[in-house]
Amino acid sequence: MVSSRVIMSNHTTIWRYRDGNALEADADELAAEEPLEIRVKNRAVSVTMRTPGHDEELAVGFLLTEGVIHSRADLVRVDPCLIDRNGNVVNVVLAAQARVDFERLTRHVFASSSCGVCGKATIDAVHQRIEPIDSDVTVDASMLLLLPDKLRSAQQTFDRTGGLHAAGIFTAEGEPVVVREDVGRHNAVDKVLGYGVLHDLLPFDRHVLMVSGRASFEIMQKALAGRVPVVAAVSAPSSLAVDFACESGQTLLGFIRGSRMNVYSEPGRVRVTAGPHQQ
Amino acid sequence: MVSSRVIMSNHTTIWRYRDGNALEADADELAAEEPLEIRVKNRAVSVTMRTPGHDEELAVGFLLTEGVIHSRADLVRVDPCLIDRNGNVVNVVLAAQARVDFERLTRHVFASSSCGVCGKATIDAVHQRIEPIDSDVTVDASMLLLLPDKLRSAQQTFDRTGGLHAAGIFTAEGEPVVVREDVGRHNAVDKVLGYGVLHDLLPFDRHVLMVSGRASFEIMQKALAGRVPVVAAVSAPSSLAVDFACESGQTLLGFIRGSRMNVYSEPGRVRVTAGPHQQ
Repeated sequence: MVSSRVIMSNHTTIWRYRDGNALEADADELAAEEPLEIRVKNRAVSVTMRTPGHDEELAVGFLLTEGVIHSRADLVRVDPCLIDRNGNVVNVVLAAQARVDFERLTRHVFASSSCGVCGKATIDAVHQRIEPIDSDVTVDASMLLLLPDKLRSAQQTFDRTGGLHAAGIFTAEGEPVVVREDVGRHNAVDKVLGYGVLHDLLPFDRHVLMVSGRASFEIMQKALAGRVPVVAAVSAPSSLAVDFACESGQTLLGFIRGSRMNVYSEPGRVRVTAGPHQQ
Repeated sequence: MVSSRVIMSNHTTIWRYRDGNALEADADELAAEEPLEIRVKNRAVSVTMRTPGHDEELAVGFLLTEGVIHSRADLVRVDPCLIDRNGNVVNVVLAAQARVDFERLTRHVFASSSCGVCGKATIDAVHQRIEPIDSDVTVDASMLLLLPDKLRSAQQTFDRTGGLHAAGIFTAEGEPVVVREDVGRHNAVDKVLGYGVLHDLLPFDRHVLMVSGRASFEIMQKALAGRVPVVAAVSAPSSLAVDFACESGQTLLGFIRGSRMNVYSEPGRVRVTAGPHQQ
């Protein structure tokens, strides 16, 4: 596996404005953002703007959520491309049985069905290649309330830059399996799923995916590719994220703050222990 | 122009968890998310997940920031595709002089240069088609501090859903020109720039772009396509956003909170009126 450059933040000089005083030069730290070119069989399939570090996880998670690979067995290794001096190109070597539809991977434009383009058609298209979830796992409500703090405390770079999204996979008991950060929300999710593939931990079908921001359609789609039955977001979900969760049998939680949260789908997986209790 | 469906939020039933009590069913409102297929000459060039409403602005802003059009004159009109019953497909009719490189628009995979893939090469690639900015506009620091509240008060859907990003174009005096919301950060920026094209207001070279979230490379690139000299973000910028701003001659502001903010580039455009004053 490629050993990641872990330059997740850059030092710089900025000017601070405070309370009407003249601008003051000061040192600061910024969340790093660089392009990553992902190649399969030495053919470029994607360029994404990402925070360097854990690039092999990002590449593998991307290929999982795009349906190219399904488990560790589909993968031989991830190589750095030595032609690139910046460490911003990786090549994924697939096992013989993994099939790649390069046309679909690089097209990024979907043919609309005869009934048109809508959320329902988009969800159906995902379900054509990924089965809905049927996991009997349950999670304790009070455990879920602790996840935002656990995610935040596992974030190494956020406190210094304030600029990174995070995603974490937790067990049903709330133990962190892996937490990753990135300037891109989707990349952080790809990284934790890629970690799962590389360590042969998939399916994550008794786990919770916690994300620092909002829950969108694409986050739910990625969670389904990792077979995650419970997705928890610090902020709001979109309407299509909720529709997707309902049709995929995923439990979707949002606005987890203090002693409260909202459950948007499949509430049966949320276990409430009897009676009010202190947080 | 297509008249937008303005269904920016959907009503739903959720379950609320509070203070250890059993889940309680309740009504809620979610930020709407649906796919939009953008066609040029009736050929699909992009599908983006967006919040319905102002779709013609989104399509036009997307084509501006992709370098396909440069002003109102490049555009004839935006049509809904009647074949699609959901209002999720639009076709942009271009003027004769506008040229489209369909290959580049739909590829979304960039050939890496001989020196590899890096932020510097990515910035240079943008500058090959968009000139850096040379605007002598200045803006008052105390005016900038008011922009987050002005953006928020112009957001119509956020208060009900908590789920939408916003982008706004303001004059150098802080007057709002246009504010748009979307589940996608980039879409909100495309919408305000598309509004500018459709109303023939470009270049926005004496204006400020304010965004509700973080400032990334792509936000700065879009601002440059609209010739915006000052970009202000509520949260943190990435390292590449700052690099891009420096090389493009853009003033980049972040962490605008209360009586403070950070200036990351071109501080000369920020005017500080003498002496501390009350917010």
